[in-house]
Amino acid sequence: MPRPLLDLAPDAIATAARRVMSRCDDLAAISSMDGGIERVYLSPEHARVNRIAADWMREVGLAPRQDAAGNQLGRVDGRDPDAPVLMLGSHLDTVPDAGRYDGIAGVLMAIEVVRLLAREIPSFPFGVEVVAFSDEEGARFGKALLGSSAVAGAWDPAWWELADQDGVTLRQAFLEFGLDPSRIAEAARRPDELAGYLEAHIEQGPRLDRAGESLAVVSSIASARRFQLAVHGEARHAGGTPYDARRDALIGASEAVVAVERICRAQHHVIGTVGQLEAFPGAVNIVPGEARFTLDLRGEFDGTRDAAWTTIAAELDEIAGRRGLRWEARELHTAGAVMCAPTLMDVVRAGIEEGTGQRVAPSLFSPAGHDAMSIGRIADVGMLFLRNRDGISHHPDESVAVEDVARGIRALAEAVAHLADERSR
Amino acid sequence: MPRPLLDLAPDAIATAARRVMSRCDDLAAISSMDGGIERVYLSPEHARVNRIAADWMREVGLAPRQDAAGNQLGRVDGRDPDAPVLMLGSHLDTVPDAGRYDGIAGVLMAIEVVRLLAREIPSFPFGVEVVAFSDEEGARFGKALLGSSAVAGAWDPAWWELADQDGVTLRQAFLEFGLDPSRIAEAARRPDELAGYLEAHIEQGPRLDRAGESLAVVSSIASARRFQLAVHGEARHAGGTPYDARRDALIGASEAVVAVERICRAQHHVIGTVGQLEAFPGAVNIVPGEARFTLDLRGEFDGTRDAAWTTIAAELDEIAGRRGLRWEARELHTAGAVMCAPTLMDVVRAGIEEGTGQRVAPSLFSPAGHDAMSIGRIADVGMLFLRNRDGISHHPDESVAVEDVARGIRALAEAVAHLADERSR
Repeated sequence: MPRPLLDLAPDAIATAARRVMSRCDDLAAISSMDGGIERVYLSPEHARVNRIAADWMREVGLAPRQDAAGNQLGRVDGRDPDAPVLMLGSHLDTVPDAGRYDGIAGVLMAIEVVRLLAREIPSFPFGVEVVAFSDEEGARFGKALLGSSAVAGAWDPAWWELADQDGVTLRQAFLEFGLDPSRIAEAARRPDELAGYLEAHIEQGPRLDRAGESLAVVSSIASARRFQLAVHGEARHAGGTPYDARRDALIGASEAVVAVERICRAQHHVIGTVGQLEAFPGAVNIVPGEARFTLDLRGEFDGTRDAAWTTIAAELDEIAGRRGLRWEARELHTAGAVMCAPTLMDVVRAGIEEGTGQRVAPSLFSPAGHDAMSIGRIADVGMLFLRNRDGISHHPDESVAVEDVARGIRALAEAVAHLADERSR
Repeated sequence: MPRPLLDLAPDAIATAARRVMSRCDDLAAISSMDGGIERVYLSPEHARVNRIAADWMREVGLAPRQDAAGNQLGRVDGRDPDAPVLMLGSHLDTVPDAGRYDGIAGVLMAIEVVRLLAREIPSFPFGVEVVAFSDEEGARFGKALLGSSAVAGAWDPAWWELADQDGVTLRQAFLEFGLDPSRIAEAARRPDELAGYLEAHIEQGPRLDRAGESLAVVSSIASARRFQLAVHGEARHAGGTPYDARRDALIGASEAVVAVERICRAQHHVIGTVGQLEAFPGAVNIVPGEARFTLDLRGEFDGTRDAAWTTIAAELDEIAGRRGLRWEARELHTAGAVMCAPTLMDVVRAGIEEGTGQRVAPSLFSPAGHDAMSIGRIADVGMLFLRNRDGISHHPDESVAVEDVARGIRALAEAVAHLADERSR
């Protein structure tokens, strides 16, 4: 077995891992939610964590800047300042009532990797750039991966009119945050500027925990589609309207919610989730005339994901026909499955196996979306998963062990060194 | 067939009916909702309609006053100022995005009846009091019949802590409206103050319209229970959490919504409605950890209503057991079936058949709740239903024909005269 390329002091790695854990705690306190974590795109909390991340970047020798989409970046050159950069990072935004590691751990680990490689990077054939993406979750505007889409040059001008739950449009939010919507294209990177993108992230699923392993190589990131659906019936008085005169939109939507589970379970590696549902007008004594809900659909491959959607749509047709309802869907987000680059999978695997001594680095496909999906449009991408206990994520109980963070930092540093070694040949 | 007791000019009745229709239009403009009607308890709109109703009462000789629960009353004496009063009325509050006749038409018809009986009332053996109840729908605090419960002396001190969707408690709302919570008992009437209560109301159901009849005698008002339910599971990341690791509260709640319909359909004259449902935390990419919904349950008799609830609770137990969920219910409101008083049913029937020439006055039970349910605790109650087109109510399309309002006014005036005649013997 090849030996590790780096001679990293175990103490330095343990210290780095403890620093990541304590900084995750620090950032958890920057929240718009009482008694919980919520940090959405273009919020005052987003501005605060960017400033803090910039300080932490500066401390390890990275030159920080915020880009035109509110992403926080920090760069250090390799031996040639004009060479492309290897991006390392993840995101700092959260869902409502989030855990403290999803995305955040990956950004902080990248900063520690730069710290540990301070002596090596100046001789690398690429620069290193740490990125803290500004919006991965899509929690505010319903559209995920806004930050990395801007970097990938895939910003859709139609997004400017997306509104949050208070009716604030993305355009207004940009202006309020101090960003100029007309300069969004400046956030975009050219493919020839990038040597690749590596992201460490908690698994957000229970497979590593069940297998008793710390780290995994990610093979691909799921194909995903998101929909906003509405079922329309007729609002009627709850007392006076007999069942045969009702067109109850909520019962129709409820049948659809149950059907989504049944249909997706019947497909291999497809998972559908209804995360939001609300009935209107929403009075205790009125038969709902409308029900709105979201559908988040993911699959290992685009084909099985689309087959599940076709079946769900047919089910909605059947429900609507039987109940005298009408339904419609608006697609909020779509992303094809992104395959990790074989070279980057190899260096991540080498990083895990040689750097940490974990005998086998399992390969996992990621049903969860990641910034790497967007960056995959302009660069090779690779990902490293960290075990998280019981696979609990998007929840205050989300947790990761400091030992696994230490192994992850070591593996990521080793992977970067492997890539530098390979690209130097 | 006995002849009508009153010699009312057809022109005066037609004018009265047109006035009711145009005043329903006037009140529809007093709304907290853009492009729709919404007027809830203790709102600025409530205060405005009370002032307008007071003016209209004064115009027909009623002495207006607002009671300690915000109900608007107006009184005129019979031959003995110490005699009990016959109450005539209904309510002026609405559900969100309401129609313009539910409750309102009954209040305005009562005012017209007083106008038409101006010469007769001074010789009646009872006074006449028109009442515009302040909260029948329960749209703001989730608890229905607050106004008439105060009049019936059935105010529960626990209600003070009920909060609206902005967190304003009923107690705070009283103070903001200018009412003193400590004086609520002053709104209560003693049984010996009341000669009875008669209410005209649109049917809020399609039975009269299907039968081609204008008016009906109400035989009883449904037994009702209202619940706030919550299903608890676990919030998890939508991508990473496989189906076998999910405890999705929304799917459990959706199964319950579908079950409510199935269970109630299987019972005779029981109807259950889920009017509100919301998933939490409510993000597109999080498996819902909680779902909250309401259940409005009505039946002709208490026993069948309660049997339906028992079956629904058993179904929730089954769903929760199978899906690893927990559920709980809080009862917001309960009311036993209220039987209309035979004497008052007789005078309403006589009013319809002799006053309007409608050959048969059908008897209907009311699945919808009415203020008469509360007043039934302290007085005999009777009700008159008016046909509304397609039975559409709690909806902007709610409608009633001016000809039916004219027949209703005539029937109600005649019913009052019959009662006066009978009590004078």
